[in-house]
Amino acid sequence: MSLKKKAVTIKDIAERTGFSANTVSRALRNKEDISIETREKIHEIAKQMGYVNNTLAASLRLGYTNTIAVILGDVSNPHFAIMMKEIEIHARGHGYASFLLNTNEDEELEFAAIKAALEKNVDGIIICPTQKSEKNLEFLRKSGVPFVLIGRRHPDYNNVVCNDEQGGYLATKALLEAGHERILLLLGPTYISSARERLEGYRRAYREAGIPVFEQLIREVEVTSQNVQDVLTQLEKEGETYTAIFAFSDMLAWSAWNCLSRQGKSVPKDCSLVGFDNIQSRMSLPFALTSIKSYKGRMSTETVELLVRQIRGNEETEQMVIDTALAEGETITAPRTQDA
Amino acid sequence: MSLKKKAVTIKDIAERTGFSANTVSRALRNKEDISIETREKIHEIAKQMGYVNNTLAASLRLGYTNTIAVILGDVSNPHFAIMMKEIEIHARGHGYASFLLNTNEDEELEFAAIKAALEKNVDGIIICPTQKSEKNLEFLRKSGVPFVLIGRRHPDYNNVVCNDEQGGYLATKALLEAGHERILLLLGPTYISSARERLEGYRRAYREAGIPVFEQLIREVEVTSQNVQDVLTQLEKEGETYTAIFAFSDMLAWSAWNCLSRQGKSVPKDCSLVGFDNIQSRMSLPFALTSIKSYKGRMSTETVELLVRQIRGNEETEQMVIDTALAEGETITAPRTQDA
Repeated sequence: MSLKKKAVTIKDIAERTGFSANTVSRALRNKEDISIETREKIHEIAKQMGYVNNTLAASLRLGYTNTIAVILGDVSNPHFAIMMKEIEIHARGHGYASFLLNTNEDEELEFAAIKAALEKNVDGIIICPTQKSEKNLEFLRKSGVPFVLIGRRHPDYNNVVCNDEQGGYLATKALLEAGHERILLLLGPTYISSARERLEGYRRAYREAGIPVFEQLIREVEVTSQNVQDVLTQLEKEGETYTAIFAFSDMLAWSAWNCLSRQGKSVPKDCSLVGFDNIQSRMSLPFALTSIKSYKGRMSTETVELLVRQIRGNEETEQMVIDTALAEGETITAPRTQDA
Repeated sequence: MSLKKKAVTIKDIAERTGFSANTVSRALRNKEDISIETREKIHEIAKQMGYVNNTLAASLRLGYTNTIAVILGDVSNPHFAIMMKEIEIHARGHGYASFLLNTNEDEELEFAAIKAALEKNVDGIIICPTQKSEKNLEFLRKSGVPFVLIGRRHPDYNNVVCNDEQGGYLATKALLEAGHERILLLLGPTYISSARERLEGYRRAYREAGIPVFEQLIREVEVTSQNVQDVLTQLEKEGETYTAIFAFSDMLAWSAWNCLSRQGKSVPKDCSLVGFDNIQSRMSLPFALTSIKSYKGRMSTETVELLVRQIRGNEETEQMVIDTALAEGETITAPRTQDA
């Protein structure tokens, strides 16, 4: 029993237009032996009738579907959402439709997303991997479908990332230069490459400043659950103080700002704050968070370009690192203790 | 010439495992005449080898793909991104993988997105239509594929919307009750049903308060380009004053807040502000915008449920309206003129 309504066929269009099925078929494939006028007329009527060229069947014959899948950790994070929008626009310029799949940073869902994409015979995949293990990327590699990692890196695979070490360094340096020594690092889980590298940058800035890192001020937070309040409460219990926070993402920085506000603390007067991603370059917000520019537009464009090269047959692994920069906002000031 | 690497076949798995191709095939389809142990072993090895069940071919035989497409206006707006996340989770519970396509509120891109979805033989479509004309929905209707509009309505089609008239009314009423009379309405384009209906609610609140609407304070803004600054500049040129703003979305409200700040004005002291969508229920932000709850979670869930009923054969048009409520923040206060 089929519950679907009957689809419009070439025969239906032939009946409606009075042309032969052969003419209709050739017109829809834009064959040049059919006059422009006839082609346009047939296309127009096909559109009116709701005809869809069955590329599904065609893709089985031709091997290409002109679609790519984009598999991201959390589309409700504007950082990912903005990248998706950029990828979609740029891929469209190359004739590819983009489909987004969400993993919620969960390894099982990531596997399901990869399978769903492969089952749709996409020509290529852009993925920001959860990195909880190697299994899913290994599975993807064996499928033979070209793919590029975005935002997180792996030595064996194509990737486009920003210079996370540099970003971590620049953020920390800016805070150290403003006079802060006890800088709380709200870090993503260190199985994520960008978390490890931003931590390296944090350490380098301290090293250059000749100040030892306060290891107890390096705290991992879940990137999706946003347990920032728990971390701040825990620090208070432990009696750990800090005069500034460097957060792994703008989302985490906003969340920290929110927690501080609820404690009656003001940013930056009571606590300086630096984020990462500079979401405000694409979203008008009523405050100016100091952040790290990760150049989402360029990163998305380069990722699409790299993927297209792979789809077209480049078999060399390509890895690209895009420079970061400090985006000056209004959330760094000298620590309070020095004011007194 | 095929540039793709060779995919793993049932025969490859048979060779590797020593089972017959028939056993492998039956095991992969979980046929019960194959022992659980054998099935698990074959599934495990198939996964290791990167085997993908060709549902593309299977879907041509069976007519179902267990996928739905979600076509939204602007995924970089957190309101849409949060809905997408909710839809994805709920659809997965019903066994559907969700693919997102972005229209940038552009009618041609919307047509391309609908075509791409149909060409992938999705079982159903959730769409927030641009509403610039009737053409695309008409095309979609003719395809016979079940679809549901989300967030915007049309008398002829399935839809799930929030009570936009009520939301517009509640926002305006809250501002009127705080003592504001000149309330700037930053409205979405009125070809969008929700913009028309929120305007009706705005008018009702004024009518009930016995105050005539200031027609010159009703201004349409593009929902994607966010030309809020232009609108505010234009109003200043015209010498129009206002003590409060009701914005069509939280994104537009943030943008207005940003513009006011750059003019040295403070919210709510110099201008009260109400948004729509209450994005902060899902995103921790360092300020508390008063907004209208549109219950994104429930709206997304109901939309998926409605779509699943349609896929399963319900041919009756269903239209659902979900109540809204005021989300109290900290951006309404009495107008300044009354303070003096």
